[in-house]
Amino acid sequence: MSSLPTWKDKALFTPGPLSTSASVKQAMLRDLGSRDVEFIEIVKEVRRRLVALGQGSADYTAVLMPGSGTFGIEAVLSSVIPADGKLLILINGAYGNRMFKIANIHNISVIGLNFPENIQPDAEDLDAALSDDPAISHVAVVHCETTTGIINPIEKYGEIVKKHNRIYIVDAMSSFGAYPIDLETCGIDYLISSANKCIEGVPGFSFVLALKTALAATRGFARTLSLDLLAQWEGLESDGQFRFTPPTHVILAFHQAMHELQDEGGILARAARYRQNYEITLDGMQKLGFKAYLKPEDQGYIITSFYYPEHPKFDFREFYERLSDMGQVIYPGKLSHANCFRIGHVGRLGSADVRALMAAVSATLADMGIKIEDIKE
Amino acid sequence: MSSLPTWKDKALFTPGPLSTSASVKQAMLRDLGSRDVEFIEIVKEVRRRLVALGQGSADYTAVLMPGSGTFGIEAVLSSVIPADGKLLILINGAYGNRMFKIANIHNISVIGLNFPENIQPDAEDLDAALSDDPAISHVAVVHCETTTGIINPIEKYGEIVKKHNRIYIVDAMSSFGAYPIDLETCGIDYLISSANKCIEGVPGFSFVLALKTALAATRGFARTLSLDLLAQWEGLESDGQFRFTPPTHVILAFHQAMHELQDEGGILARAARYRQNYEITLDGMQKLGFKAYLKPEDQGYIITSFYYPEHPKFDFREFYERLSDMGQVIYPGKLSHANCFRIGHVGRLGSADVRALMAAVSATLADMGIKIEDIKE
Repeated sequence: MSSLPTWKDKALFTPGPLSTSASVKQAMLRDLGSRDVEFIEIVKEVRRRLVALGQGSADYTAVLMPGSGTFGIEAVLSSVIPADGKLLILINGAYGNRMFKIANIHNISVIGLNFPENIQPDAEDLDAALSDDPAISHVAVVHCETTTGIINPIEKYGEIVKKHNRIYIVDAMSSFGAYPIDLETCGIDYLISSANKCIEGVPGFSFVLALKTALAATRGFARTLSLDLLAQWEGLESDGQFRFTPPTHVILAFHQAMHELQDEGGILARAARYRQNYEITLDGMQKLGFKAYLKPEDQGYIITSFYYPEHPKFDFREFYERLSDMGQVIYPGKLSHANCFRIGHVGRLGSADVRALMAAVSATLADMGIKIEDIKE
Repeated sequence: MSSLPTWKDKALFTPGPLSTSASVKQAMLRDLGSRDVEFIEIVKEVRRRLVALGQGSADYTAVLMPGSGTFGIEAVLSSVIPADGKLLILINGAYGNRMFKIANIHNISVIGLNFPENIQPDAEDLDAALSDDPAISHVAVVHCETTTGIINPIEKYGEIVKKHNRIYIVDAMSSFGAYPIDLETCGIDYLISSANKCIEGVPGFSFVLALKTALAATRGFARTLSLDLLAQWEGLESDGQFRFTPPTHVILAFHQAMHELQDEGGILARAARYRQNYEITLDGMQKLGFKAYLKPEDQGYIITSFYYPEHPKFDFREFYERLSDMGQVIYPGKLSHANCFRIGHVGRLGSADVRALMAAVSATLADMGIKIEDIKE
């Protein structure tokens, strides 16, 4: 017989799954029928609140899609680009590359504008590409590239995309709920994010904020049944129900999480908490001799990449496991060309948690026989 | 601020989401990192137990796929059939038709052998079709067609499919865990089921039991990234981790549910409980004048379709809502040609719950002014 552990859950300084509040998890202690009026009302409210979080007018809608964030990205790319469409992706990390891979699998004509992982994609290059190639119908970019934690200027790109009258897709997976995003100002047609990021729900679905006129014009474009975005929207609009069994418990948790985001004071208050987590982390890690991968002006407050210290006794696996044994979970890196690890700043964690992490990092270095003086230049 | 209700959850006599135990839901009160050793061990154990439930040898494996059951079906159909493959589907209900639709969306060459919804697909027709058309590479069928509750003889079909050396796909969504299935005896290459059916977990992922040699031979066949079955398997095999953020809480619930299935006495004990639920339902409903849609010999103990009574005062919507107001949730029908509703027998429900439902149905008929004598012939 399996049973609940008697120890505290580890603190998750990761890009997800994240630490969530006890009350968010407790909201899952119910079995609601997916056709039940109460559940249908909850889904309606969640969708309405999501559009409001994106400062969207009645021209926008929200569609929930079961699965991880990648399912949501694939739902958009495989559902909204016609057979004769062409996608341009601004790429400066693994998640931009993943979109490229998805386009390829679906035989969508695609070009990637590639930039180094520590550089924001150049808006002028985008402008030139759209001027040169009228066949490009859609542009996609990642807002916060979780590969590094870099924040890409989605509003600047949006102006250019709209000047050229193209459809604009933004992967705001790890930023939505923590960075204010105005759908209309940014000219966004489709924004994708996930239940288990900055809204602090548990993992199990992603969601898409969409401009209704854009989505309504995609009939016949979908390349799958499960990830058909238009059909999913029409299902929710017709009778409020999902086409296929939804993850009811996960949605109940998300509903609670949206209330808690509001209670915290909304996006700006949450942003302030995450920024403080980031600042304590950056300051603490620098004092311990670690160097951040990005320049401070490009760095967001979602997640930070740190170089491995150049020290013969530093072994990331050992470092990771020692921290984990103290209840502190950090994350490996995902860079193509540099040895980094990552520390996340999001989820239900505050300054005390971050200070505990910094103490654990300091103790771990000592346990591994690594002196701060030796890793500082 | 959202909060837990002070009333009892309704009893879900549906095909899912189902009623689950309190302890299954309580297993979700934790945030585990997806790379955490504890989580990786839980996933390994779940996969091992799933293969064992299918009485599978070391030749079989289990792959978890986020999303609803349909995501799992689409993962298999879009991942294991080559571009020059051809799929035959035995169809006697909505879920067989859904597989046909999925094949069409992916431009998979497909033929449907269609049968009435109250008839098991004819094994001799299958034999003849496979003899006539050597291009057919794969055969798919639904075990328990939830449309009606009919049980299709998957072992008989399996013998024929294997005699002709084709690949055999079984949708055991609503039967696995409640009907003993021997993967090898049935000649099954791929079996699909879901977390929220007879194993009594909460909804959020499906799973595929696969013959390893069959799955290993599908490289390059996948038509999506998210639903790529081979890649999902290889991810789980390589380091025990999911390619993309898994629904950790839902998996913890499922892990608990598998322990509770074992504690109950395994598939046979669970089958006995569900069969008793079915028998009390059938007997009670017949006494109240309702007629079952299927012949008893074709009817399974998962879900039963009942005809609307021929009475001017019977209105299904009103009937449904009155029952729901008494905490009893039944389900609409899905038949193409007859007016039926459905009552499920699965999930964490026992004879007392079913008796309460029968009492509620009886009271509802009285409240609606429908006398039993009038609907009985």
